[in-house]
Amino acid sequence: MKILIIGGKGTIGNKVSTHFAKKHEVIIGGRNAGDVTVNIDESKSIEDMFESLGKVDAILCIAGEAKWAAFDEMSEDDFYIGLKSKLMGQVNLVRIGQNYLNPGGSFTLTTGILADDPVVMTSSPALVNGGIHSFVRAVSLELKNGHRINVVSSGLVEDAVDKYEAYFPGHNPIPMNKVVNGYVKSVEGKGTGQIIRMYDNR
Amino acid sequence: MKILIIGGKGTIGNKVSTHFAKKHEVIIGGRNAGDVTVNIDESKSIEDMFESLGKVDAILCIAGEAKWAAFDEMSEDDFYIGLKSKLMGQVNLVRIGQNYLNPGGSFTLTTGILADDPVVMTSSPALVNGGIHSFVRAVSLELKNGHRINVVSSGLVEDAVDKYEAYFPGHNPIPMNKVVNGYVKSVEGKGTGQIIRMYDNR
Repeated sequence: MKILIIGGKGTIGNKVSTHFAKKHEVIIGGRNAGDVTVNIDESKSIEDMFESLGKVDAILCIAGEAKWAAFDEMSEDDFYIGLKSKLMGQVNLVRIGQNYLNPGGSFTLTTGILADDPVVMTSSPALVNGGIHSFVRAVSLELKNGHRINVVSSGLVEDAVDKYEAYFPGHNPIPMNKVVNGYVKSVEGKGTGQIIRMYDNR
Repeated sequence: MKILIIGGKGTIGNKVSTHFAKKHEVIIGGRNAGDVTVNIDESKSIEDMFESLGKVDAILCIAGEAKWAAFDEMSEDDFYIGLKSKLMGQVNLVRIGQNYLNPGGSFTLTTGILADDPVVMTSSPALVNGGIHSFVRAVSLELKNGHRINVVSSGLVEDAVDKYEAYFPGHNPIPMNKVVNGYVKSVEGKGTGQIIRMYDNR
C-alpha cells in the first residue's frame, strides 16, 4: 500500500511511520519535515499536497493543534486555533482527500483521551477531540468507493510522559506499540466508523 | 430561581419554558421572539443581552444551528455555520455567561442523539454535538463559584416527528415530558459535567 502519514515525524507519528514502512510505501507529510510539505490548517495546502502526490491507499493524520489554557483565560479566538487546525484540518483532509484515495482505501484520524476523560485546561482540545469522534461516526455512513474512516484516541503515550505527566494526574501511560496497533487496526483491518480507544484506566 | 432560556420559543424550548415558568421566573431569549433579543452566533449580542439582563440563577441554551447536507456536498464554509452557531455560540454563552451567573448557578446546553448515533447528511451537526459533549465534561472541571454545567442530548423528539422522522429511520420518538425532565435534572439536580441522554434505543 501507498500510505500518506501527515505528522509522521511527531511523537506518535514517528513510531507509526517506522512500523508501516516495514511493509508499505510510506510518504510523510509535515509542515517542515517529511517527503511532502503540508499545513493542514489551510485547505489550499492540502489540495496542493494531493495534486503533487496523486492517489494513495491510506491517509493517516497525526497532526493538528489546539490551545491548552485555563477556561477563564480562553478567548473566542483561542478556541478557533483548535477549530481551524486539529478539527477542520482533519475534516478538510477527508473532504479533499476522498478524491485522492483509491477505492477501498482508509482514513485514520487522531484525537486523544481528553474527549472522554478530560483534565483541567483542556476545554478546547477536549471539544476538538469529541467533535472528531462524532464526525468519524457520521461520515462513515456516507463515504463512497469502499472508503473507510476511523479515529485512534490514545491516552497519555509513553513517549510523551516526561513532557505531559504533570497534566494527567493518575493516567496510566500507553505503550507505543499499543498506540501503533490502533493505526494498524484502522489501516489493515476492515472496520469503519470506529473510535479506536487505546486507554488503560481499568 | 431566575432562569434564562435561550431558544425558549422553539420546539423543545417551548415545552421547557412552560414547565419552568410554573415555579420560577423565566426569561426567554431569542433572535426574534422572547423577552430579550440575542443571537448566540455573535459574542457581542451575548454580552449585550447579559448587560441588559444582569445576574441569573440558571442559563439554558436550546438554540443554535448546523447545516444538514450530504458530506460530498459540504464546503468548508458549510461546516463553519455549525461551528459559529451551535458550537461556539454555546461555548461563548458559557465563557461570557459565567460572569452573570449567581454562585451555585447552572448552565444547561443542548445537543442531540446525532453525537452518538448519526444518520446520513449529519457530518456537521454530529461533529458539533460531539464537540459540545466533550466541552461540557472538560469545562465542568474548571467552573468556579459552584457553577455547574450539563448538556441534554435527546433523540428525535415527539413534537418534531412530522418534520424529521424521514431522516431518522427506526429511531423511537422521545416524549416531550422526558425531554423536559432532562433540563429539570440539570437545573434542579446537583450534577455537573453530565451528558443527560434522553434516548430510547433499547
